[in-house]
Amino acid sequence: MTLLDRPGVPGSAAARRGERTTAPRQDGVVLTAGVGALQLEAGGALPEVELSYETWGTLDADASNAVLIQHALTGDTHVAQGHGAEPGWWDALVGPGKPVDTEKYFVVAANMLGGCYGSTGPSSLDPEGVPWGSRFPFVTIRDSVRAEARLADRLGVRRWHAVLGGSMGGARALEWAAMYPDRVRHCVVVAIGGYSTAEQIALAQAQLLAIRQDPAYRGGDYYGGPEPVAGLGLARRIAHISYRSEAELNFRFGRRGQGAENPLEAPGGAAERGRYQVESYLDHQADKLVGRFDANSYVALTEALMSHDVGRGRGGMQRALAGARAEFFLASVNSDRLYFPEQSDELARALPGEVPVHSIDAKIGHDGFLTEIGQLGAELRRRVFTL
Amino acid sequence: MTLLDRPGVPGSAAARRGERTTAPRQDGVVLTAGVGALQLEAGGALPEVELSYETWGTLDADASNAVLIQHALTGDTHVAQGHGAEPGWWDALVGPGKPVDTEKYFVVAANMLGGCYGSTGPSSLDPEGVPWGSRFPFVTIRDSVRAEARLADRLGVRRWHAVLGGSMGGARALEWAAMYPDRVRHCVVVAIGGYSTAEQIALAQAQLLAIRQDPAYRGGDYYGGPEPVAGLGLARRIAHISYRSEAELNFRFGRRGQGAENPLEAPGGAAERGRYQVESYLDHQADKLVGRFDANSYVALTEALMSHDVGRGRGGMQRALAGARAEFFLASVNSDRLYFPEQSDELARALPGEVPVHSIDAKIGHDGFLTEIGQLGAELRRRVFTL
Repeated sequence: MTLLDRPGVPGSAAARRGERTTAPRQDGVVLTAGVGALQLEAGGALPEVELSYETWGTLDADASNAVLIQHALTGDTHVAQGHGAEPGWWDALVGPGKPVDTEKYFVVAANMLGGCYGSTGPSSLDPEGVPWGSRFPFVTIRDSVRAEARLADRLGVRRWHAVLGGSMGGARALEWAAMYPDRVRHCVVVAIGGYSTAEQIALAQAQLLAIRQDPAYRGGDYYGGPEPVAGLGLARRIAHISYRSEAELNFRFGRRGQGAENPLEAPGGAAERGRYQVESYLDHQADKLVGRFDANSYVALTEALMSHDVGRGRGGMQRALAGARAEFFLASVNSDRLYFPEQSDELARALPGEVPVHSIDAKIGHDGFLTEIGQLGAELRRRVFTL
Repeated sequence: MTLLDRPGVPGSAAARRGERTTAPRQDGVVLTAGVGALQLEAGGALPEVELSYETWGTLDADASNAVLIQHALTGDTHVAQGHGAEPGWWDALVGPGKPVDTEKYFVVAANMLGGCYGSTGPSSLDPEGVPWGSRFPFVTIRDSVRAEARLADRLGVRRWHAVLGGSMGGARALEWAAMYPDRVRHCVVVAIGGYSTAEQIALAQAQLLAIRQDPAYRGGDYYGGPEPVAGLGLARRIAHISYRSEAELNFRFGRRGQGAENPLEAPGGAAERGRYQVESYLDHQADKLVGRFDANSYVALTEALMSHDVGRGRGGMQRALAGARAEFFLASVNSDRLYFPEQSDELARALPGEVPVHSIDAKIGHDGFLTEIGQLGAELRRRVFTL
């Protein structure tokens, strides 16, 4: 398989431009694998799909120690530090001696279909060598999971010891359990319910419009020209507010002005006033994302997230999950106001058997699934990662 | 005074184009009064300010029965039905025989400074006859209240029996009590706290960017050309989500598609998929606002709302209100997730004496201050409107 893999820069979009090589696999270094053509749930097809991924640790002889970790909307494959210096986004959970111990488990993290961290997405080249752009088809959570199942085949993983993820990563973990009941032993779903709600769809629509209304977006065909940075930045601001709690924002920023800027002084009109700290903070969040993420991928993955509904076409959530054979581990963040804890509770009730919902205690809001994931470590060791 | 008043169409922006007349005042018909030049809090000035307003009922001989009702962000002066057929936005509260009985009280509702329903705003003509546009200065809640105080002088109202408002109208009511302690007997503040919080500022910033990033906005100088309808529509969507509760949106719309539209079918790409019902609903909300509101006024009033902070420059909220002589009546909506009930509670604690916070029981969210205002009727009759 190494003949088809490509090493790259850890956690970097440059990975997809890496050269094919036969170098040995290293922990936390991006590789890419072809998984073939994919017919898509909403119609259309992709002729040639590649998924980028990173791995940590070694698959054991009977391939029973493999763990799939699924990233969130703008996340990447670099879940743990590994070979390079760059920290991972779930370092508190994954690594040597950590609850998901990479000295015992073979950990895989794949970039989602449609993403911009190495997997086939709108910025990838089509068979004619032109970026997909506006022609990139509609991909759903289920499409991505089907591609990931082929990657698992390629990696020699018939059955995952565990599939886990938070936020949109949790949606993919849940779909794994529904689509491939024999291939998931433990399923860990953090900070998301069984479907995207009307409110989550509404907030997503606003983000999509922010990008699509940016004239630089050009319907998605902006490659080679100016990028829709204003639109993507606005989308990020809308999203980021929803990722944080009201208390968090108010405690950190209140009504203070940014540095020496005075929000209440603007003889020339409000457009010239100083910024509030919270505005400057959101400007910074927007700038950071714009520097690392492709607007078309933001659109594609947001559309996929809107499609999240494990019960769709399966007679509802309970029926969809009746055949799931995984042991489920659910968790929610108690201050989450985007994926309310009640939605995790509702999912738990739809699952076979008694499934408790663990609570992450955080003031920060939804992003507690990233910053406070360590709180689940002991329970995960006890129930899922017992090696 | 009638020599300076202008009748107009009830609740219509056309009011500001009305001719001067000596016609007698009629209930619920827009009039306009000049209130002179205004030096502004954030610097700058307006040379000649007009406020549009409507009235209901008759001012009694000792001018003791006057009530000022303050509208919210995109509200207008048409609080009650009156002479015309058009319903008012607080008809459940204001009218003949209603808690604010227009057969007993003289009710006034003024369009806020910066608005587009007849008061001086960005779409008004400057002294040279050119729309203000980008040159319209930064106006705050306090600036508007100072202009309203001059309107009260013009109307012969030395002291209001009550000043009341919800949302941004509540902010102006509160400022009245702080700025003119001798001129407010009862102050009714619904569904807003003593200041705009970091989160409210953050949500406002996103709305401002949605408009300002629309190329048709042209910095505010779009009059005579295409209007920034896409930007204003997006701002409205962002705002409207915050006005409604998650439960309301999910109960009404869930994940259903709009009519025959299928959100999961789009062989040509996600941009071509059918809409979810909640998307169609927000499209409709956006279209409605775009058809009745000026983008520059939306910006000006949003900026004013961000400035809301009764304690600013006055040693904090408690000190600012220590000298207030009004009897306060506070209320919050129990499902409000934009102006949380806790913020009304915090304001109550900052007020002199014991001030209870009445609770409007509504599933809808913030907009309950409009749809469920009737719930406060009995308490308002008991405590404020006792005639």
